[in-house]
Amino acid sequence: MDIGARIAGIRLLMEEHQIDAWLITGSDPHLSEYTPERWNTREWISGFSGSYGKVLVTADRVLLWTDTRYFIQAAEEIKGLGIELMKDRVPNAITVDAWLMDNLYSGNTLGLDGSTISTFEAAQLSAKLAAKGITFRSDLDLVDEIWLDRPAIFSKPAYDYPVEFAGKSRSEKLELLRNELLGRNQDSIVISMLDDVAWILNIRGEEIPYTPLVTAFCYVDQQNAWLFVNPSKLSSPFRTILEKDGIIIQPYDEFVPFIRQITNNRIQVDAIRTNFEISKSLSVHNVVDPDVSPVNLMKAVKSSREIANIKNAHVKDGVAMANFLFWLFQTIGKERITELSIGHKLTEFRSKQHLFKGDSFHPIVGYGPHSAIVHYHATSQTKLDINPENLLLVDSGGQYMDGTTDLTRTFCLGTATQNQKDDFTTCLKAHIALATAIFPVGTKGYSLDSITRKPLWDKAINYGHGTGHGIGCFLSVHEGPMSIRAEFNNEPIREGHLLSNEPGIYREGQYGIRIENVMFCKKLTSNEFGDFLCFETVSFCPIDKHLIDIEMLNSEELKWINHYHESVYTNISPFLSDGDVMEWFRLQCDPLQ
Amino acid sequence: MDIGARIAGIRLLMEEHQIDAWLITGSDPHLSEYTPERWNTREWISGFSGSYGKVLVTADRVLLWTDTRYFIQAAEEIKGLGIELMKDRVPNAITVDAWLMDNLYSGNTLGLDGSTISTFEAAQLSAKLAAKGITFRSDLDLVDEIWLDRPAIFSKPAYDYPVEFAGKSRSEKLELLRNELLGRNQDSIVISMLDDVAWILNIRGEEIPYTPLVTAFCYVDQQNAWLFVNPSKLSSPFRTILEKDGIIIQPYDEFVPFIRQITNNRIQVDAIRTNFEISKSLSVHNVVDPDVSPVNLMKAVKSSREIANIKNAHVKDGVAMANFLFWLFQTIGKERITELSIGHKLTEFRSKQHLFKGDSFHPIVGYGPHSAIVHYHATSQTKLDINPENLLLVDSGGQYMDGTTDLTRTFCLGTATQNQKDDFTTCLKAHIALATAIFPVGTKGYSLDSITRKPLWDKAINYGHGTGHGIGCFLSVHEGPMSIRAEFNNEPIREGHLLSNEPGIYREGQYGIRIENVMFCKKLTSNEFGDFLCFETVSFCPIDKHLIDIEMLNSEELKWINHYHESVYTNISPFLSDGDVMEWFRLQCDPLQ
Repeated sequence: MDIGARIAGIRLLMEEHQIDAWLITGSDPHLSEYTPERWNTREWISGFSGSYGKVLVTADRVLLWTDTRYFIQAAEEIKGLGIELMKDRVPNAITVDAWLMDNLYSGNTLGLDGSTISTFEAAQLSAKLAAKGITFRSDLDLVDEIWLDRPAIFSKPAYDYPVEFAGKSRSEKLELLRNELLGRNQDSIVISMLDDVAWILNIRGEEIPYTPLVTAFCYVDQQNAWLFVNPSKLSSPFRTILEKDGIIIQPYDEFVPFIRQITNNRIQVDAIRTNFEISKSLSVHNVVDPDVSPVNLMKAVKSSREIANIKNAHVKDGVAMANFLFWLFQTIGKERITELSIGHKLTEFRSKQHLFKGDSFHPIVGYGPHSAIVHYHATSQTKLDINPENLLLVDSGGQYMDGTTDLTRTFCLGTATQNQKDDFTTCLKAHIALATAIFPVGTKGYSLDSITRKPLWDKAINYGHGTGHGIGCFLSVHEGPMSIRAEFNNEPIREGHLLSNEPGIYREGQYGIRIENVMFCKKLTSNEFGDFLCFETVSFCPIDKHLIDIEMLNSEELKWINHYHESVYTNISPFLSDGDVMEWFRLQCDPLQ
Repeated sequence: MDIGARIAGIRLLMEEHQIDAWLITGSDPHLSEYTPERWNTREWISGFSGSYGKVLVTADRVLLWTDTRYFIQAAEEIKGLGIELMKDRVPNAITVDAWLMDNLYSGNTLGLDGSTISTFEAAQLSAKLAAKGITFRSDLDLVDEIWLDRPAIFSKPAYDYPVEFAGKSRSEKLELLRNELLGRNQDSIVISMLDDVAWILNIRGEEIPYTPLVTAFCYVDQQNAWLFVNPSKLSSPFRTILEKDGIIIQPYDEFVPFIRQITNNRIQVDAIRTNFEISKSLSVHNVVDPDVSPVNLMKAVKSSREIANIKNAHVKDGVAMANFLFWLFQTIGKERITELSIGHKLTEFRSKQHLFKGDSFHPIVGYGPHSAIVHYHATSQTKLDINPENLLLVDSGGQYMDGTTDLTRTFCLGTATQNQKDDFTTCLKAHIALATAIFPVGTKGYSLDSITRKPLWDKAINYGHGTGHGIGCFLSVHEGPMSIRAEFNNEPIREGHLLSNEPGIYREGQYGIRIENVMFCKKLTSNEFGDFLCFETVSFCPIDKHLIDIEMLNSEELKWINHYHESVYTNISPFLSDGDVMEWFRLQCDPLQ
């Protein structure tokens, strides 16, 4: 069946069910960033293979929403299919919700698979539509009815994530969770996000791109804990281990029937992290509390064991980066290198490191003007050759059993212009402002966001993305609930939080700059004014000194960069076996001035 | 009737109405910061005369909540009355809501006068109580039943606020408001906050302390505008002017019956700024939109005419301050001066200025350890003698027909210690950080709050109050909806907003420091990164150079302070008539270094 036939099939079903617009969110019942293949519905209906987008089908139109990083690729992939490209996340974007409000009328019906939208989003959208007399229908899955060869959930084995990495056993974690539920006056909790399931039960898997997760649901009350998972994923010994820890294992497909029979409970169901169909069915016979999940909160605070492991993973990542960078600067101008081949080479260097399990996201390699496209995604159509001139931005990370990494560096491949130095040094000042920030307990991420941006704002410069996101421990590279962004987020930055620090400056058509390290939050001091926190950086990779205008740094900033390079050298050099690499690396880490 | 008899009277009525706890919010039907005498219910029931507090009466207890600035005064005033003092706005404070949740039981009833609590607060409190099975009753006014000699609303005349000060005529403002309502799909609006009423109709009065307001309600739809006001307040010529502008004038007491007969309207009723009884009665037969009032939003954005006037008012205020400071430094150590007499002297100097109408709030004069008490309120019991040593903090402001002022300075009366200099200079750095901030359009106050605090946080210092509040134009000295505080506030800082800039450092038992100027927000530049805003300071008063450690300032900060003092001298000196004052003033404004 080609895409035209699929769209026609959906329209036939829409007519049958009297649905005027069918929305494909491209998400899965776990609201994953990277979905199991079974839920690649967006690609199935439109041919668009990017990782972000929504598709809307009406009687006479098909629209695909995606964001800047995919405009070129999406246009290429949907060419000739009669699908309209809608630009999302740009100034004055017409969002899906706004389009629906403008194009549907009272009496119309919008349909979507309610298991692929969050409770919160569904509540917002359905309320807007209701105010205009439009029906919101979420109980059908039209795609499933006509996708005859739809892939099953992968059967790749799940495995035990040992306590030496996890820091706490699953029994300890379940006890902490149950105490938390008691404190909240709740009987039980639905855990549906795959990273929450992986964290609470110390399980990992290999079926999702970039993230070591297992497709499963979990349900916990004061007596029991249930894991709903495809049975073929559990080896007999691992099953025994889980059962010994009191986990009741049931088939994945039993989850929905299971929750339908629960009654008279007060149940924790995180509205942002749980799909609408789950909340809807639970709320019929129970009280549903939509607060932030305690699992999400607990997972974000890393234990001292986890932090030690995470530092280790970052050292290995730094060694891989050192070897990669030496290779890059030796090879450039001699062999053909492209934006795509650099990504592959990086993975190759990382894969030599102990406990490496794969990239933590698709590497972002942007050369020259492409570096100005935030989260640029090179394809065989768009990839540029890398030459010994202009800037190269590389944003990449690895999944190691002992930690997840995420690092961005911007390199000068030729001679830096003064404008490039101005921008790079301004961006570095912003990075240092956050890396050295001191702040009282209770401070929210938005307060740190503006402290980071100040050096840019002082020059009337800004960037259109967040400053920092949480990071899992051998889990998702983007992890909540905290963040460092201008937008309101009520979750304070706490001791043990692991966060990225990634300010940037992007000059459209010219070049882009981003400097990203990972850091964790720790206690600094207590005094008459309260308790104060600060950060410690755990990424170890040289920052390109050719792009730094030393005159623009104050003495504290200069001290920071020299101290940072010293710590990079101290941590990484013991693991560099090649003398040439070592010599080159020493130069990169030498102090400025 | 003494206070004991009043409490007994309330308890009798509580028993009659089966009410277990009666809450006196101390507010009025307009939710005013400073209430007309008629609504001084807090003082009537407890004897406590401060401007912030709540009283709760149960069958066997009476509790008074107030904050740090009033702990001493309140304890004094309620002595021997059997009233318990509850400390509000301190770490781990037991709030009224928390106390009620802990001490009332299922089946109990809390009562309060629903016209003295905001719709938002009432909704929050009643929902909490309901979850515990406690009834929330808001339709009674027990105080009114036994306060036999309760004062009537003052009959002081209201007057026309001329367009030369207001910037826009009331007809222009009403037209703008009606367009705003059309855009929001609303039929009409209730305007109940007294500063909103004064602003929209260009009226002012003299019946409320510190604020030139008139006790009145206003209601506006697309055809008409109603003013509900005690008729004796309007002179016949002023009444004619208003009626010529299409204002329908009705007695104050007709407001509630008037809104009760409105049906089938979609009505704008700001939930934070409108009392609960109004919303409750309107919502029976209408749709009530609880958004931020458009009047509140429009009032906050000052026109260029208003800004020019406000600058003028601040120049006059600076002249008064210059003369006051000269007097202070000449007199100290020679005559007896106290925290109280300084406040009176300040008012005396201000009252010599053109268009002065009174203080904009009760002056805060804190000497030595008293300066460390934020918003300290000197009384005849607590007042200290001022000697030529230690620090003096003076926070005061004036109401001028052309603008409202608010200024804090901290002076060294003897020889500054290095600790005092460290703290003062750190506080000055914070003040300068905000005064010189550049930020993109859309920035919220919380983003500017942390930029201001950074110089303090860097030294693990903090302050427990907000950084900036909005200020009216010959209206309230505290005006919303925007603010510069760590707490979430969704209203961005906009071009034309007038705000205070007042970081502080308080060392309990030793000294306190605050440096406060008023500034307005203006456009700086537009470029590829968007539109950027900045501030211009309009307060003109020397900052005590004896307390500045010049080594702690960077070159930009040093430039700012010297430039600021130059502008103070340029603006103020032409109005200093006395040669001695002029000579002294010149020294205060001379550049550092």
